[in-house]
Amino acid sequence: MRLLARVLAPKVIVHAHCDLPCGVYDPAQARIEAQSVKAICEKYAQNSDPEFRARAVRIKEDRSDLVKHHLWVLWTDYFKPPHFEKYPELNQLFNEATKLAGAGGTKASNDVATADALLARIDEIATIFWETKQG
Amino acid sequence: MRLLARVLAPKVIVHAHCDLPCGVYDPAQARIEAQSVKAICEKYAQNSDPEFRARAVRIKEDRSDLVKHHLWVLWTDYFKPPHFEKYPELNQLFNEATKLAGAGGTKASNDVATADALLARIDEIATIFWETKQG
Amino acid sequence: MRLLARVLAPKVIVHAHCDLPCGVYDPAQARIEAQSVKAICEKYAQNSDPEFRARAVRIKEDRSDLVKHHLWVLWTDYFKPPHFEKYPELNQLFNEATKLAGAGGTKASNDVATADALLARIDEIATIFWETKQG
Amino acid sequence: MRLLARVLAPKVIVHAHCDLPCGVYDPAQARIEAQSVKAICEKYAQNSDPEFRARAVRIKEDRSDLVKHHLWVLWTDYFKPPHFEKYPELNQLFNEATKLAGAGGTKASNDVATADALLARIDEIATIFWETKQG
Amino acid sequence: MRLLARVLAPKVIVHAHCDLPCGVYDPAQARIEAQSVKAICEKYAQNSDPEFRARAVRIKEDRSDLVKHHLWVLWTDYFKPPHFEKYPELNQLFNEATKLAGAGGTKASNDVATADALLARIDEIATIFWETKQG
Amino acid sequence: MRLLARVLAPKVIVHAHCDLPCGVYDPAQARIEAQSVKAICEKYAQNSDPEFRARAVRIKEDRSDLVKHHLWVLWTDYFKPPHFEKYPELNQLFNEATKLAGAGGTKASNDVATADALLARIDEIATIFWETKQG
Repeated sequence: MRLLARVLAPKVIVHAHCDLPCGVYDPAQARIEAQSVKAICEKYAQNSDPEFRARAVRIKEDRSDLVKHHLWVLWTDYFKPPHFEKYPELNQLFNEATKLAGAGGTKASNDVATADALLARIDEIATIFWETKQG
Repeated sequence: MRLLARVLAPKVIVHAHCDLPCGVYDPAQARIEAQSVKAICEKYAQNSDPEFRARAVRIKEDRSDLVKHHLWVLWTDYFKPPHFEKYPELNQLFNEATKLAGAGGTKASNDVATADALLARIDEIATIFWETKQG
Repeated sequence: MRLLARVLAPKVIVHAHCDLPCGVYDPAQARIEAQSVKAICEKYAQNSDPEFRARAVRIKEDRSDLVKHHLWVLWTDYFKPPHFEKYPELNQLFNEATKLAGAGGTKASNDVATADALLARIDEIATIFWETKQG
Repeated sequence: MRLLARVLAPKVIVHAHCDLPCGVYDPAQARIEAQSVKAICEKYAQNSDPEFRARAVRIKEDRSDLVKHHLWVLWTDYFKPPHFEKYPELNQLFNEATKLAGAGGTKASNDVATADALLARIDEIATIFWETKQG
Repeated sequence: MRLLARVLAPKVIVHAHCDLPCGVYDPAQARIEAQSVKAICEKYAQNSDPEFRARAVRIKEDRSDLVKHHLWVLWTDYFKPPHFEKYPELNQLFNEATKLAGAGGTKASNDVATADALLARIDEIATIFWETKQG
Repeated sequence: MRLLARVLAPKVIVHAHCDLPCGVYDPAQARIEAQSVKAICEKYAQNSDPEFRARAVRIKEDRSDLVKHHLWVLWTDYFKPPHFEKYPELNQLFNEATKLAGAGGTKASNDVATADALLARIDEIATIFWETKQG
């Protein structure tokens, strides 16, 4: 059964980053936090207790901050001039994605649709990211 | 080609956490930072410039801290009493894994083998984690 | 009178920690934050102003986080294999204590009784801690 | 034996703070970090490995920062105008203590004597603190 | 037109600090955050949506914290004994300013007048600061 | 004389930001940290003590991080689509500026020229920022 679990578990080759730089990056870091944002929006919708909601809004704000941070790191530290040439939409994509995690996005909104829009943008970025990894 | 990238990119279903709780967890968060730790050890070995090495050691320390944090969150917040009953080795596994990311592990050591030992422990935890996800 | 104060003041031999490691640890760090959590619960009960309560809930959450952090440090960094052999209840004690400071404990609850339960667990840990200090 | 440990353990009535305010303060928080600073200075003196020393210096800097923070909190948040009237030396005491934990103190110096001077200042503050607690 | 903007833009010679020390300080850092606090109080007054207000209160608290931090740094790290001799009011000024950014000030109050009182104190500090810069 | 100081002091109308959003922004926040980075580079060049240099490199890294953060905030939170239309160079400007504060810039380099290049980019951004403030 443990073997089965191993097979079913995502074959994730995860990547992080640091400013050494270590060369390890992965859009999954932003996506993880964005999925948390979405899950919070869903729980917010299902629970009308004001104190639960206050906690949900606050924690969602922290998670949105992390989304912004992880995306900024990719934009500044991972992507290089040749990438921006090849993918001229990259700048706008990152700007829209980070805005969707900010005051005009999942910070002020508790709407699952906003979280979904954020996730969609992150997936577009991830697609480009993985393309660049293959040269 | 973009389609190809989509296919080749990890089919990662990522999970985070927060103390709402949002119910989103994923051992990938710890693994990402541990891979960064390993990459830093490798770069350290290849570059004898003292200032580069000083930066490497310091950044590795921050990354190791993040490994510890993500593992602690899983141990305290995700795993529940029935899990500990079913997997009696869980406590020791987490204790060893977090120690491997601490002062007796990747914080003081620049040895790639130490980072590999840490990664191995995280993978054991991830296997159990994904088993519990299937009920 | 200052002399009197000196006499009355707690004869505290405090201990911290760091990952050098410096070898300085003390369960007082977790207890301090847990007492703050309890005081906030009491003030919350006495003041029905919604904005005061919102601030109380948020600050209590930060303090609970610190309790978890200080306990995790003791569990991973101070306690060694021989301790776990001698005190087989240690793992469960730490897991319960950190859970009591989390989403199922003082994070979501404003109940003084929950804070008291957390303090009781910390005291059990402190007792073991001070026993180990005497060899 | 556990009873003995209980008896020998410090009878610490610890106090923290937060900006609710919770009303819980304790100079022990600053002292804990300062003791860590001193222990690091001692370990630094005993170990000439450059990498160990680099780690020691960095961690000592973080710990010194925490000393400053805990002292600032006491100075701004706990002590009130009547205290400053009764103890006109308080301002200078706090200014000297925080300077001793800064760039002219334990941040740049690895000298145990500097850490001792910092601890002495914190003890003077603690004496006044506990006097004010008795009305 | 860009030239015009250059002319109209504040001729700000900004200064930061760090504990090297780098010798770069500027009261503007505290003032920036205090202006943010004031702007939040104004927006709070104009918007009665409870969730907006909850976010406003929380963010204001973080910003107030930053005000306190920047002021503490000036008080401990920039000002030296000769300054305190020449400006005997300095200690009380800083203590009042930081209290105004704390639990008895802009943390608990949403009143624009409190934020204005804080800004006034910061301006008094800034005046003294710039005097000391001229020898 | 105090009057003179008031006159000589920068007539800074400072602006911060937060995700309420409070609407208060100012490129001065990034510039303050970048000036600190430059000052550290200068002190590094003048002091060959290895421990001083290690501290300088580390502190410079933290300050560079703050530069990146403040610039990212402006890019994502302050600048809106019409700005990007009017100033098509904005994206590249921000990308280059943040890269200059990263691993390929002031994080790895102790060269004053790198810090100067970063300051120049920030000034270009500030010029555009103040233009947009005038409609």
